[in-house]
Amino acid sequence: MKIIIVGASGTIGKHIAASLEKEHEIIRVGSKSGDFQADITSAAAIRQLFEKTGPFDALVSTAGDAHFGPLKTMTEKEFSVGISSKMMGQINLVLIGQHYIKPKGSFTLISGVLSEHPVLSGANPAAANGAIEAFVRAAAIELENGVRINVVSPTVVEESPAYFSYFPGHIPATMREVVYAYHRSILGAGTGQVIKVY
Amino acid sequence: MKIIIVGASGTIGKHIAASLEKEHEIIRVGSKSGDFQADITSAAAIRQLFEKTGPFDALVSTAGDAHFGPLKTMTEKEFSVGISSKMMGQINLVLIGQHYIKPKGSFTLISGVLSEHPVLSGANPAAANGAIEAFVRAAAIELENGVRINVVSPTVVEESPAYFSYFPGHIPATMREVVYAYHRSILGAGTGQVIKVY
Ligand SMILES: NC(=O)c1ccc[n+]([C@@H]2O[C@H](COP(=O)([O-])OP(=O)(O)OC[C@H]3O[C@@H](n4cnc5c(N)ncnc54)[C@H](OP(=O)(O)O)[C@@H]3O)[C@@H](O)[C@H]2O)c1
Ligand SMILES: NC(=O)c1ccc[n+]([C@@H]2O[C@H](COP(=O)([O-])OP(=O)(O)OC[C@H]3O[C@@H](n4cnc5c(N)ncnc54)[C@H](OP(=O)(O)O)[C@@H]3O)[C@@H](O)[C@H]2O)c1
Repeated sequence: MKIIIVGASGTIGKHIAASLEKEHEIIRVGSKSGDFQADITSAAAIRQLFEKTGPFDALVSTAGDAHFGPLKTMTEKEFSVGISSKMMGQINLVLIGQHYIKPKGSFTLISGVLSEHPVLSGANPAAANGAIEAFVRAAAIELENGVRINVVSPTVVEESPAYFSYFPGHIPATMREVVYAYHRSILGAGTGQVIKVY
Repeated sequence: MKIIIVGASGTIGKHIAASLEKEHEIIRVGSKSGDFQADITSAAAIRQLFEKTGPFDALVSTAGDAHFGPLKTMTEKEFSVGISSKMMGQINLVLIGQHYIKPKGSFTLISGVLSEHPVLSGANPAAANGAIEAFVRAAAIELENGVRINVVSPTVVEESPAYFSYFPGHIPATMREVVYAYHRSILGAGTGQVIKVY
């Protein structure tokens, strides 16, 4: 399969890429890193990306920022980070990518535990995650030609100790668990699923 | 209680207002209708609204647009309707309103069944609803001084026959059920709840 991984240089993305590169053609994408550069906060950049890659079998996203900070002082501008990057960045990968993906292809996005189990300072990523998960369920019933879509929702991962203090009592997800969750979406047959890694 | 109802002239809002007006002071708000006009797609308008109303006990929202249309042709611009109106309009009511609400006050927003059970052409409201529900869970653990927040999630309501064809097999929610859901949030003690009316 030809698999595009947006965020392939990241903490999570590099493990997904490494787990698939022996058996598949991997196209690595980042805003600064990778085989192709595309900032997913720009719909035009996403369109240019797919014009360069051509048709593909799987689009994997392990990318998207959100703002961590207290609700009490949160501004609309801070809140917009999660909307333009993690939420609309990934949603635009699908809205635009649906016109380039091959029949029976798949989209696999990333959300996170905060949509269901919030933590302090996490309102912005929580909202972005909730939007992505509901969008995935809705898109699954409209995508054509057997194209599937799922989202992987990990809790904090073992290789991100900088976030541990935000997630008291969350047992960090292992990279092995996160990689298997992506494989279930990319190589499996499910659609409209939130694949929880927690 | 002093209760601000944003969307008080609408199909749902007028029933909430009517059910509370005998025992409470109701301030009706709409973009064009009501005691005060404020377009919730504008954070500045929301700020001006609360400067005029002063401190309040409950903020109720039954307002917010989203775009209904096929995923296949959905543009970023169409998608932005649900983000700026239903999602960020309501989230900004909370981000800004938290600085005006009285201790032990409550916020009650509106989402809808599509976050959990999508229908064709509903990806944009689904995403907005998912964002609002996750935001409510997250905000509930950060709001101070006993302030609560919940969201009412109805399926299509009995007085909106124009939407029935979008919702095959959904038994329309009665206005009585929707009113009781709002009362559970406004007059009850729960927080962080998605109160489903389906
Ligand atoms: N780490 C965790 O514990 C955890 C847990 C649950 C969910 N998540 C979610 O998983 C995602 C990835 O997390 P991570 O820790 O792996 O992040 P990371 O280490 O910061 O890596 C992010 C990756 O995405 C790319 N990227 C960032 N912004 C981009 C943009 N605007 N356009 C295109 N590519 C972009 C980066 O490449 P460039 O630098 O080249 O742009 C990099 O490859 C995030 O959405 C995060 O919220 C993470
Ligand atoms: N109707 C249903 O079956 C149903 C089911 C589930 C969820 N919902 C959700 O419930 C909400 C209300 O639905 P509805 O059917 O009652 O709508 P509606 O009859 O169209 O009423 C909308 C109300 O909101 C106000 N409003 C609209 N846009 C506004 C804005 N930008 N700023 C401030 N006020 C605004 C309107 O007043 P002005 O005209 O003065 O602006 C009106 O009072 C929507 O978010 C909808 O998605 C509806």
